[in-house]
Amino acid sequence: MEGYNFSTEILVRFAETDAQGIAHHASFVVWLEVARVAYLAEHAGGYLAIRAQGIEALTTAVEVRYHRAAYFDNRLRIWTRCVDIRGARFRYEYAVERDGELVADGHTAHATVDAGTRLATRVPAWFVEAVATAEG
Amino acid sequence: MEGYNFSTEILVRFAETDAQGIAHHASFVVWLEVARVAYLAEHAGGYLAIRAQGIEALTTAVEVRYHRAAYFDNRLRIWTRCVDIRGARFRYEYAVERDGELVADGHTAHATVDAGTRLATRVPAWFVEAVATAEG
Amino acid sequence: MEGYNFSTEILVRFAETDAQGIAHHASFVVWLEVARVAYLAEHAGGYLAIRAQGIEALTTAVEVRYHRAAYFDNRLRIWTRCVDIRGARFRYEYAVERDGELVADGHTAHATVDAGTRLATRVPAWFVEAVATAEG
Amino acid sequence: MEGYNFSTEILVRFAETDAQGIAHHASFVVWLEVARVAYLAEHAGGYLAIRAQGIEALTTAVEVRYHRAAYFDNRLRIWTRCVDIRGARFRYEYAVERDGELVADGHTAHATVDAGTRLATRVPAWFVEAVATAEG
Repeated sequence: MEGYNFSTEILVRFAETDAQGIAHHASFVVWLEVARVAYLAEHAGGYLAIRAQGIEALTTAVEVRYHRAAYFDNRLRIWTRCVDIRGARFRYEYAVERDGELVADGHTAHATVDAGTRLATRVPAWFVEAVATAEG
Repeated sequence: MEGYNFSTEILVRFAETDAQGIAHHASFVVWLEVARVAYLAEHAGGYLAIRAQGIEALTTAVEVRYHRAAYFDNRLRIWTRCVDIRGARFRYEYAVERDGELVADGHTAHATVDAGTRLATRVPAWFVEAVATAEG
Repeated sequence: MEGYNFSTEILVRFAETDAQGIAHHASFVVWLEVARVAYLAEHAGGYLAIRAQGIEALTTAVEVRYHRAAYFDNRLRIWTRCVDIRGARFRYEYAVERDGELVADGHTAHATVDAGTRLATRVPAWFVEAVATAEG
Repeated sequence: MEGYNFSTEILVRFAETDAQGIAHHASFVVWLEVARVAYLAEHAGGYLAIRAQGIEALTTAVEVRYHRAAYFDNRLRIWTRCVDIRGARFRYEYAVERDGELVADGHTAHATVDAGTRLATRVPAWFVEAVATAEG
């Protein structure tokens, strides 16, 4: 998808559907996290590497716009990019695609804090560089 | 909370926490749905009444802004109002409160469709009236 | 229900249903935990009190037998008892009821460990006594 | 793993962890379902093929025994076999493995019903044959 360099796939689980016969809208929020974890594994040594440095990334906002229903056993591709790193804050943007059709899109906002003190701490330079390389 | 006439309470479940020791951010999306269901039960005969009339309300967008972490066993009050009903669309707005502090806020957007044809259908007049009474 | 002194209620959430139109079978496992937490709040100062003493209760087994489907918005009563406390182990038994009908039953098994060392540690005497009083 | 011919992998999601820092025990119940779906896709044309024939497979029991904690980002292999097909009933057995260590094991029991009438209906002959081939 234009503007994205990275994507990962998920397969809709039966437990993620609801009585409307579609994937429940909260499931997408979990999938965006799966996509972030895959992005970090690809580009920045993985989420555990970040936590190992004593930094936690908190989620401060999430927005999802649903354009089409997703169904059990659908294979969805989640395009993911990291943008707007400033100080202790950064964002991810996402597009969820099925067979070339846009199913949903959205973004999440995050803040980095010191795992011990829970105080805001700048996004580490190596993460900024890893993202610059990934998105460059 | 100012501007809200309705609220409901949830108790954070252990299953809703994550390895950061806080309620997982996707849990809030489920709680907003619990709040909508409680709002409908109070004001419009319940969600099942709507479905019984052959109408489904789809979720077309969700946005949550997280201001404070929520923890296991926290009692959270979810203030809820229905706004902006137009044609086949309407919105809910929410404020999640703990002991007088704002934990999160956000909104969801919805579209009404005919349960059989899945085509957009106007929000029924009785629902518009029920909301007008609730929010009046 | 015969043999049980304690019960708590849950309301089936829409997010807990699946595309078969019923409550997903994994939802029951979460509800049993909600029931345990309510049992502890009633009889033993709450789960947080146990954790505050440096003890964690791990779940070592779960079994659920499903007798009837549960549906969205069903109000379910979960009968709960604590049994078989021995050394560092104890069990809960459950019966999930809707309008006098048995929907599911089952049990969970637990082990107490020191929160720091993660080594098995005896169930504390005050907990044994609290359960004896509750079940007496 | 001895006695098993089929396995599939899952990666523990952050949303599947809890405030004990481990994968929540209810997550395993969802993973067993993911494993059944993968088994059916491999051996019997997929779960959707079964539903397309007007048959639903209900879950009538689940049992999980937890031997070791699983953690975020763990890659778990779920060994799966279908056993004891009789009339309208069958079982799956599972072993969840991480790096050659047994993390959990368990079983689920299922009943086939006609999707329209919800009455018990024999497990179809083609499914019995597919399983015989898979397990043979």
